[in-house]
Amino acid sequence: MNIPISNQPRVVIIGGGFGGLNLAKSLRNKPFQVVMLDKNNYHAFQPLLYQVATAGLEPDSIAYPLRKIFKNFKNLHFRMAEVKSVDTAANEVITDIGTLTYDHLVIATGSATNFFGNEQLAKYAMPMKSVPEALNIRSLILQNFEKALITDDIKEREAFMNIVIVGGGPTGVELAGALSELRHHVLPKDYPDLDVRRMSINLIEASPRLLSSMDPRSSEEALETLTERDVQVWTDVRVMSYDGQTMKASNGMEIQTYNLIWAAGVEGCVPQGWSESQLNRGKRLIVDLHSRVNGLKNVYAIGDVASMESVDLPRGHPMLAQVAIQQGKLLASNLLRLRSGKDVKAFAYKDLGSMATIGRNKAVVDMPAGHFKGFGAWVVWMIVHVMQLIGFRNKMLVILNWFYNYLIYARDIRLIIRKYQRP
Amino acid sequence: MNIPISNQPRVVIIGGGFGGLNLAKSLRNKPFQVVMLDKNNYHAFQPLLYQVATAGLEPDSIAYPLRKIFKNFKNLHFRMAEVKSVDTAANEVITDIGTLTYDHLVIATGSATNFFGNEQLAKYAMPMKSVPEALNIRSLILQNFEKALITDDIKEREAFMNIVIVGGGPTGVELAGALSELRHHVLPKDYPDLDVRRMSINLIEASPRLLSSMDPRSSEEALETLTERDVQVWTDVRVMSYDGQTMKASNGMEIQTYNLIWAAGVEGCVPQGWSESQLNRGKRLIVDLHSRVNGLKNVYAIGDVASMESVDLPRGHPMLAQVAIQQGKLLASNLLRLRSGKDVKAFAYKDLGSMATIGRNKAVVDMPAGHFKGFGAWVVWMIVHVMQLIGFRNKMLVILNWFYNYLIYARDIRLIIRKYQRP
Repeated sequence: MNIPISNQPRVVIIGGGFGGLNLAKSLRNKPFQVVMLDKNNYHAFQPLLYQVATAGLEPDSIAYPLRKIFKNFKNLHFRMAEVKSVDTAANEVITDIGTLTYDHLVIATGSATNFFGNEQLAKYAMPMKSVPEALNIRSLILQNFEKALITDDIKEREAFMNIVIVGGGPTGVELAGALSELRHHVLPKDYPDLDVRRMSINLIEASPRLLSSMDPRSSEEALETLTERDVQVWTDVRVMSYDGQTMKASNGMEIQTYNLIWAAGVEGCVPQGWSESQLNRGKRLIVDLHSRVNGLKNVYAIGDVASMESVDLPRGHPMLAQVAIQQGKLLASNLLRLRSGKDVKAFAYKDLGSMATIGRNKAVVDMPAGHFKGFGAWVVWMIVHVMQLIGFRNKMLVILNWFYNYLIYARDIRLIIRKYQRP
Repeated sequence: MNIPISNQPRVVIIGGGFGGLNLAKSLRNKPFQVVMLDKNNYHAFQPLLYQVATAGLEPDSIAYPLRKIFKNFKNLHFRMAEVKSVDTAANEVITDIGTLTYDHLVIATGSATNFFGNEQLAKYAMPMKSVPEALNIRSLILQNFEKALITDDIKEREAFMNIVIVGGGPTGVELAGALSELRHHVLPKDYPDLDVRRMSINLIEASPRLLSSMDPRSSEEALETLTERDVQVWTDVRVMSYDGQTMKASNGMEIQTYNLIWAAGVEGCVPQGWSESQLNRGKRLIVDLHSRVNGLKNVYAIGDVASMESVDLPRGHPMLAQVAIQQGKLLASNLLRLRSGKDVKAFAYKDLGSMATIGRNKAVVDMPAGHFKGFGAWVVWMIVHVMQLIGFRNKMLVILNWFYNYLIYARDIRLIIRKYQRP
């Protein structure tokens, strides 16, 4: 790979998500040559992907060109590349555009959808971890409504309209809330010939409660609000199989649906090249409190792909944007410390809380200071998310779209730009 | 196709472009059952497609959900369907979702890219008649810049950066202007490691002048402005072949490019089912001044797909939005006239002029009252285009994007959301 020669040590960062981006920003014009590799040319703000899937936002609202972020970074080189594997013995990264040597390597590749080895699910269930996947969901749901309209078979019509969301974490809850708004405010007007009341939105969660990583009061609020808004919530239920039409669950329930969205599990999204002692069961890289991968001195992992156990968090840190951001920033300062012969600092997670919106006017927020919910929480949720977006234009776009969608109950992006073709 | 039964005569409109849309609007809640068929669920504002291709606008700015337009049309049924053929003897339309009978049929299917039978061009050249095609161009150009960066071969690098636009009509001129802005204001900052000055933008026109349907002074202004902005304009030159890398022209010129955009010709986009006397050489349906297809009483064609000759315009009306709009409106009133036993009126085109922008601060406008150009023309061009967009949201989005892009020379939508795969 033709990266200009530098007399500074080279830090290669794989991935421009929250972790990689904050690391790169903290190394801006510092005594390192930084090379960032990402398979996309943009940073995607994953917490709002569900709004792309539900026709609330276009991709340009939540995606931002990486090259624009790095415009005035004199020591950074960006290359759009897919990393195949890592050779930690030779200090090399092998990509689809060539091989690259490194002095320090940072794996910040995030997480991927985990179907737990179920090939049928992997084939038919819709994942939602990337912008194109969110667009696929938008197309599929709209296409299936068009199909519902032209069939004379009532069962078939319901299967086209019904939606099953698997996984009751923040993503599943937010999706269910957004879809219930579509059903109440948009679809009946768009399809006057269809009885949209016959459409069911189902949220299935294997554990005993929704938002299981949050305060039990948040779980309760999510359950109540979604139920009020005609979402069927099923807790303590696991999806056993899905053949593209019939979903069978552990409680014997069967749901006919052509729309099954999988938000039930993730695993580390690692390149090849690790030993068994470096990867845990969730395909995450085991790191110490300095983000160093087990047994390696100059290879680090941050964010979702890293499994960092601590005394407080014996099962590892949660897969949250904040963890990735804080790890990225600390790693930057540790690399600079190392460079000037100082001791490195151990990671101490500063929990800023977590939150989820449950659709119009409702959200839940768990802060270290306490739990709150309702309209106030919903406003806080919006402000925090807009603030985290990169760039003035994206912030303005999101605010304007939210205002517009809120005021007139609109979802004007219900466009089937590219048809989704089932495998 | 399960359209509800009505005691009103059924008008089937194929196509929700300018012509079909204006016809449908004029028949709103009138004594007809109207069925509109379109292969997409949105109306696309084609005059701004080139801004989607050049990272200035997202699809949702120029596309509008058809179902939303027809929300309060009690006599209209929309079906997303691809029309395969028409059986004018049986009064039937055959589609991918079933067969539909009609009392009146209106073909408003617009035009398609015409490669004049050159299979090599059809395979490698990029057309730009639809939103996905415009997105493909955006992806291809950005992907090729990424490839330019990683090759060590200078010739190859230039081929990745070079752009050839074939066709010097409004589309080609507007594309060339927009691409020259990208080259001057965005690409050098995004790719500091590339010598963007080595990129050439070529506009090739077979006739002696650009904008050949406009006033010669407009052609001159376009030529001057584009040349000033480092676009190579080649008039009286025809593209002979393009193998995906080398473009050979009629004047012996060869250009190495992986980016060849074809804006050089269109033909009618007709379903099957016509006799030879009904189609002209450009695959357009021959119609009389009442938009009736040759030899048929209840089948009409409007807009680009219709070839309507008149005393003033012996070679047919121009393929312009205004012609489609006016034909759509007149056909609606003629159908209503027929229904109440009155005589139908002949079409008389009211020429509102034509215009083209040549990029930042420059446009040309030919009005029946006269020709003007420069900054004033550019402002007029913007106002006219925004006014024609459907919906408040789309108007606001376009205005905001234009302001932002203008003020800080930005093109923040330079996102490769879906990679373009060459055939």
